[in-house]
Amino acid sequence: MTQTLRLKKNADRRLKAGHLWLYSNEIDIQATPLKGLEPGAQVTIEAANGKALGVAYVNPNSLICARVVSRDAGVRLDRSLLVHRFNQALALRERLFAKPFYRLVHGEGDLLPGLIVDRFGDVLVVQLNTLGMETVRDEVIAALDKVLAPRAIVFKNDSSGRRLEQLESEVAVVHGELPDEVLLEENGVRFVAPVLDGQKTGWFYDHRANRAWLNSLVAGKRVLDLFSYVGGWGVQAAAHGASEVLCVDASQTALERVAENAALNGLHEQVSVGHGDVFEAMTALRAEGEKFDVVVLDPPAFIKKRKDLANGERAYARLNREAMRLLGRDGLLMSASCSMHLFEERLVECVRGAVRHQDRHGQILYRGGQAGDHPVHPSIPETAYLKALGVRVFRN
Amino acid sequence: MTQTLRLKKNADRRLKAGHLWLYSNEIDIQATPLKGLEPGAQVTIEAANGKALGVAYVNPNSLICARVVSRDAGVRLDRSLLVHRFNQALALRERLFAKPFYRLVHGEGDLLPGLIVDRFGDVLVVQLNTLGMETVRDEVIAALDKVLAPRAIVFKNDSSGRRLEQLESEVAVVHGELPDEVLLEENGVRFVAPVLDGQKTGWFYDHRANRAWLNSLVAGKRVLDLFSYVGGWGVQAAAHGASEVLCVDASQTALERVAENAALNGLHEQVSVGHGDVFEAMTALRAEGEKFDVVVLDPPAFIKKRKDLANGERAYARLNREAMRLLGRDGLLMSASCSMHLFEERLVECVRGAVRHQDRHGQILYRGGQAGDHPVHPSIPETAYLKALGVRVFRN
Repeated sequence: MTQTLRLKKNADRRLKAGHLWLYSNEIDIQATPLKGLEPGAQVTIEAANGKALGVAYVNPNSLICARVVSRDAGVRLDRSLLVHRFNQALALRERLFAKPFYRLVHGEGDLLPGLIVDRFGDVLVVQLNTLGMETVRDEVIAALDKVLAPRAIVFKNDSSGRRLEQLESEVAVVHGELPDEVLLEENGVRFVAPVLDGQKTGWFYDHRANRAWLNSLVAGKRVLDLFSYVGGWGVQAAAHGASEVLCVDASQTALERVAENAALNGLHEQVSVGHGDVFEAMTALRAEGEKFDVVVLDPPAFIKKRKDLANGERAYARLNREAMRLLGRDGLLMSASCSMHLFEERLVECVRGAVRHQDRHGQILYRGGQAGDHPVHPSIPETAYLKALGVRVFRN
Repeated sequence: MTQTLRLKKNADRRLKAGHLWLYSNEIDIQATPLKGLEPGAQVTIEAANGKALGVAYVNPNSLICARVVSRDAGVRLDRSLLVHRFNQALALRERLFAKPFYRLVHGEGDLLPGLIVDRFGDVLVVQLNTLGMETVRDEVIAALDKVLAPRAIVFKNDSSGRRLEQLESEVAVVHGELPDEVLLEENGVRFVAPVLDGQKTGWFYDHRANRAWLNSLVAGKRVLDLFSYVGGWGVQAAAHGASEVLCVDASQTALERVAENAALNGLHEQVSVGHGDVFEAMTALRAEGEKFDVVVLDPPAFIKKRKDLANGERAYARLNREAMRLLGRDGLLMSASCSMHLFEERLVECVRGAVRHQDRHGQILYRGGQAGDHPVHPSIPETAYLKALGVRVFRN
């Protein structure tokens, strides 16, 4: 028989509003002790009055002690439910995109808390970010196989989220055989996806629409791509007519991939790379009097936890200031942040500060977020994390 | 000699942050009485310590008593400055768009407080929304003529903003000759622009990017366009493959234009119209059991002033609830708001409430704002007003 977690009085409000998380201080542990539960087990959630609210998997050792997998208390997170949800997720992506390169499952946004699946044609890269998902790992593999019959499934289980859930790191091919090279296409440009040794799943599909917007504005322009990683922005800009692109990153491996991706699209002449710390690189470029028509600033998440907020905001402000200095008289800054804790209005504030600091004028032409394959759950603000501002910066 | 307005101590903070507005309670009226100033006159703004901060035009009778036109105290808002600003604005639009159909001047966003210019090829439609701009009306005409040599300039001076500035309503062709029919093109679809008797300037270019996103998802779908006006969303959807489109509006004139615009694109078979109050129309459609794959909800601004906020939010919530009821099992709601006072998170809240109310699931796939020809001034939150959410709504 299924165990039960009973909520304290009024602690069901967030759940009723559609959220999927429960915090340990919301549980009536007198009635239903968290301690007694098997980590990863599925339980029935009930309100203080005993009414069943749904099914969740639990992790008594985590601040978020339970995540709802269905509002129907009669179902379980099993192969059958996973197949159903994967089909719902696939239907959406097939409506959004003509080719099989996208995020197939975006965790809570696809009603599958803790699960990420990125698709690179017939290769799927999976992140199980919670103990509850780890517990159904075999079912995840079986359901993906049933829905898509992929050539290979890779587990890229090295996220920081796993450490919070006290899970080991694991990077492995768990199904089928991985081809020597995994390719993807975004906005008509081809890339190699480093699925085993890249960042996250190897690629960031979330910026697809933001890159598409920028691509329409780079023809004939000189572009600087800061924190370039494998060249998602820079190589696409070159493919869309940028006359010259410089990709800067601290990782030599990533820059080798930039060169590879440029060559893959016949763009090795337009794309060059600069290795080093981005702040130092900006200082050096400024010392040399270099100016660019377009600067892309897409840093990694500086604010991982709320307590990093003040320091992180200062870092974003400084980055935007320094990046803006490298723009010519009438330039375009694409300023992004993937920190969930940095609200869009704070990023606008960084841009505003940089504009004023240099006594220039700014016009925000574009405000973008995650592409549609990273759906935002309307009840879960935490599922919206990406911001991208396209800003014209000019002197009067 | 130019007159001066001196700010109270610390009242220069917002100006220094880049904002362009001054409120009457920020003026040191002991030192520089507002009362003595000619309405519409240009004055030098100075800080409490006497430092010149820029030039503004004034309206002593308005809450916003002055708007800065330059941070250089040595210039004036005259034909020469207008020509310069129009050229800067034009350079941006020519970078953004291949064809001459766009907002050319977006008030404060283009450093021209109180001035709107929409371009329909060689016809320009102008709104002078402040007394300061009204005062330089001849210079505006001359500068537009210099920069674009248009066939006609129309003043569509019937905005509610003008009433706040105690200006008369005025709709007139003030330069050249207006052709019988003014055409525009948006996202590859042609429309007739009712520049003399339509809403605002006749057309809403601000939704261009949001419509482009929706256009990519409507092939073969049944689409309902609520508050359709002249069919901006609906006719474009039909042109992008929607199998059937119903445009609903309370204005018979607008619906005649929908039919005209559909015919202009050879789409009269796909597009039909429904005349009446949108709430009543939704009730009737529901009674008839009608379902749509896509519903567009783009109401006029319900919240014109902050005091309308509570009522307005209720209206948006109800609208979203009723619109969602008309969606089939797996549908798409495009929910928009052009009310500056309704923050995006509140519109998300309306969508969330509607989803929960009907025990469905929602996925926000798209969050859009104004197109790039409606630039947001990073220091002036008031220049950002448009929100559009693309939401998948499905049953489990």
